[in-house]
Amino acid sequence: MSNEAPAFSPEIAASIQTVRDDVARLHGELVRYGLVVWTGGNVSGRVPGADLFVIKPSGVSYDDLAPENMILCDLDGAVIPGTPGSDRSPSSDTAAHAYVYRHMPDVGGVVHTHSTFAVAWAARGEEIPCVITAMADEFGGPIPVGPFAIIGDDSIGRGIVQTLSGHRSRAVLMQNHGPFTIGADAKDAVKAAVMVEDVARTVHHAREAGPLIPIPQEAIDSLFARYQNVYGQNSDARR
Amino acid sequence: MSNEAPAFSPEIAASIQTVRDDVARLHGELVRYGLVVWTGGNVSGRVPGADLFVIKPSGVSYDDLAPENMILCDLDGAVIPGTPGSDRSPSSDTAAHAYVYRHMPDVGGVVHTHSTFAVAWAARGEEIPCVITAMADEFGGPIPVGPFAIIGDDSIGRGIVQTLSGHRSRAVLMQNHGPFTIGADAKDAVKAAVMVEDVARTVHHAREAGPLIPIPQEAIDSLFARYQNVYGQNSDARR
Amino acid sequence: MSNEAPAFSPEIAASIQTVRDDVARLHGELVRYGLVVWTGGNVSGRVPGADLFVIKPSGVSYDDLAPENMILCDLDGAVIPGTPGSDRSPSSDTAAHAYVYRHMPDVGGVVHTHSTFAVAWAARGEEIPCVITAMADEFGGPIPVGPFAIIGDDSIGRGIVQTLSGHRSRAVLMQNHGPFTIGADAKDAVKAAVMVEDVARTVHHAREAGPLIPIPQEAIDSLFARYQNVYGQNSDARR
Amino acid sequence: MSNEAPAFSPEIAASIQTVRDDVARLHGELVRYGLVVWTGGNVSGRVPGADLFVIKPSGVSYDDLAPENMILCDLDGAVIPGTPGSDRSPSSDTAAHAYVYRHMPDVGGVVHTHSTFAVAWAARGEEIPCVITAMADEFGGPIPVGPFAIIGDDSIGRGIVQTLSGHRSRAVLMQNHGPFTIGADAKDAVKAAVMVEDVARTVHHAREAGPLIPIPQEAIDSLFARYQNVYGQNSDARR
Repeated sequence: MSNEAPAFSPEIAASIQTVRDDVARLHGELVRYGLVVWTGGNVSGRVPGADLFVIKPSGVSYDDLAPENMILCDLDGAVIPGTPGSDRSPSSDTAAHAYVYRHMPDVGGVVHTHSTFAVAWAARGEEIPCVITAMADEFGGPIPVGPFAIIGDDSIGRGIVQTLSGHRSRAVLMQNHGPFTIGADAKDAVKAAVMVEDVARTVHHAREAGPLIPIPQEAIDSLFARYQNVYGQNSDARR
Repeated sequence: MSNEAPAFSPEIAASIQTVRDDVARLHGELVRYGLVVWTGGNVSGRVPGADLFVIKPSGVSYDDLAPENMILCDLDGAVIPGTPGSDRSPSSDTAAHAYVYRHMPDVGGVVHTHSTFAVAWAARGEEIPCVITAMADEFGGPIPVGPFAIIGDDSIGRGIVQTLSGHRSRAVLMQNHGPFTIGADAKDAVKAAVMVEDVARTVHHAREAGPLIPIPQEAIDSLFARYQNVYGQNSDARR
Repeated sequence: MSNEAPAFSPEIAASIQTVRDDVARLHGELVRYGLVVWTGGNVSGRVPGADLFVIKPSGVSYDDLAPENMILCDLDGAVIPGTPGSDRSPSSDTAAHAYVYRHMPDVGGVVHTHSTFAVAWAARGEEIPCVITAMADEFGGPIPVGPFAIIGDDSIGRGIVQTLSGHRSRAVLMQNHGPFTIGADAKDAVKAAVMVEDVARTVHHAREAGPLIPIPQEAIDSLFARYQNVYGQNSDARR
Repeated sequence: MSNEAPAFSPEIAASIQTVRDDVARLHGELVRYGLVVWTGGNVSGRVPGADLFVIKPSGVSYDDLAPENMILCDLDGAVIPGTPGSDRSPSSDTAAHAYVYRHMPDVGGVVHTHSTFAVAWAARGEEIPCVITAMADEFGGPIPVGPFAIIGDDSIGRGIVQTLSGHRSRAVLMQNHGPFTIGADAKDAVKAAVMVEDVARTVHHAREAGPLIPIPQEAIDSLFARYQNVYGQNSDARR
């Protein structure tokens, strides 16, 4: 593999820079919402119009996450040589992110954290029931659990894709591991990571004090439909 | 509907600006106390002397909530055209706020959040018992639960008004949804939102470890009466 | 009562200013450790060499607590007219602080909060057992519960004094109300307020997961004796 | 003992300064992650190439932890006279740190905190089971409990060394007391302190809601092996 940077078209080069900026900045949201400690957690974003994505380097402090430290990868998870950050190793979860991008073409962003309450549900292998309207809005039903899988082959990526394909939820709780979220872009996936911890925490506390009242399925359907179409400003719904 | 801004009297124009400033700034209190994530939650304030209120735009980051982004509405929840912010959609909860302002003339502020412990009680449809003196001070008794209602008609607003009319509490837990609070003005409603989460969290933890000691009704009455009349500086009691 | 400021000796005037500075600044520690919301909670400090103490005004935001806003009171809790801040009402808990200063001459600081876990134990009327060494260090045994008492007469102050007189603990959980702490000065009482919430939270979580291991009484005695005498720098032990 | 500073070689003097800087700065991480309150908790770092370590002074505020306030000790825990900070007393846990450095030559950093959930497990004398992959990565299995021991002789240090010698875990929960962590250097030990609280909190919440799914031992072994060798950038794995 050559060590020279590929010659990107000006449009793609501009897209790469935008995604670098977004991915670097969005890691700050993981810190702001207390979803990560130390160097854990990672955000990636697909480069529109190219078979590329940008991801966090492995084991680097959240204080050092500048755009030029983000790492550009192809959809097999290989670092693109000669590009900024390419002297570092990408996140150890890069293979899982790459698998999602290869198999879910509509996904533009992937996030992984070990946020406390989402991991707590994952350690029991228990899906989060949809008992609050904010969860119906955002996820359209329960948050599903994915299979136990460890780093080393495609099994994490495959588990994410199999669980979320055709599912309303943009979040999966990988058993004994933690949440992975997907979205239209990196920001949308980060929002899902924030919201999955929020609902994991709320439903945890709700249930420890007594039985929960279910939401009728038709109300869940109605809330989900409205939120996807109406909420927010114009075309930027859900973000 | 015309696109021109209405001609407000200088007094009303000044009031609108004051409420814009207050509502924009008070959203920061929701963040400070951890009551909201991402773009969730909303504060509104009635414009004194006019059939108008100011509310947050829908789906906009808490980092972007300047006074000129707040949206001026009439008491049917319709955006006043030609005014600052009128090119954006108001909060998706605007109809509920408007319903409260139409039916409760003494209410000058409304707040809605999905704060964790208040939502946890709401997901069980359980009122919060008044077992701590701070709650007697602030709410004069238990925090009631309102009916299950979803966005799309007047049912949320109606549920808030029916539950809180004639009730001491300025907070209602809408079932499976979350708290709405009212107040003499926006700041007073924000205080109620902060306090309802505080008591929801404290009573949750108190009860998970054993039986609670009730407060005698006459002590609750006495604390509530004192707090409404004496606490704070001069006429600004309770704020 | 005259409206003119009394003529303090230069030494007392300097002491008053020092206590004003300390009390104003120490309120920031209540915020830093999440012990208070909105305008709740209060710190006071005795003026050395005078029958005076300095306390927070009632219902004023933590952002506005400058030294000149603190209020100087005599040991009956009456505001000293003509002094800075004397145009405002002192904390609604002033009578309780005054009672403590009148009856416990060694106490130089008093703090009251509604911190979450301390209030949770208070709502059950349950003392916190001494099962962690940090608690043996700081409090020398369990944190006791004081009687139910409401604002309006001396009953809160009397309950604090009766519970803490001759007790190792500098903290009391007033039933259904919350913690009051005392100390050699305001800073020492604030430290006790920080530590009582810390141990209230830790022992709460410890016990919800299974039986606690007691610490032998002789170990508690030994830890308490050492901490009072050795810990910290020189004579400033425990602060 | 002379009061004159020893004459260190330039290399050792430079190492001492580096460790002073690191130890002072790393205390900030304990604050950032909410592991300590008031003046509690302490970090120390061994000086490479010398029988010396640097530790926090006793009872000093986290706001005052500059490099020149850190205290240089020999491996018996005696302060080196004439060096910066030597006019103050070192942390009351200095003897335990010194014992670890004397008996575990590969340890370059030691941290002690009273972080909430780690102490909660310690108050029950219960080890934390390895049910989440982040814990397998970082600790290679359960977090063990050490014996009850109080300050005053070598029993805390001996308990740490006996529990951790030959154990994969870099963290021990000293019964009724709290976590001590070790590492290749001070930063590595601080990371272990951050992670032990993170897993203590997550597994606490996971278990309070139902049975946990164990991770197969061979998966734990595989995750631990990978993390020690691959994670992070180059040789700086795990930091």
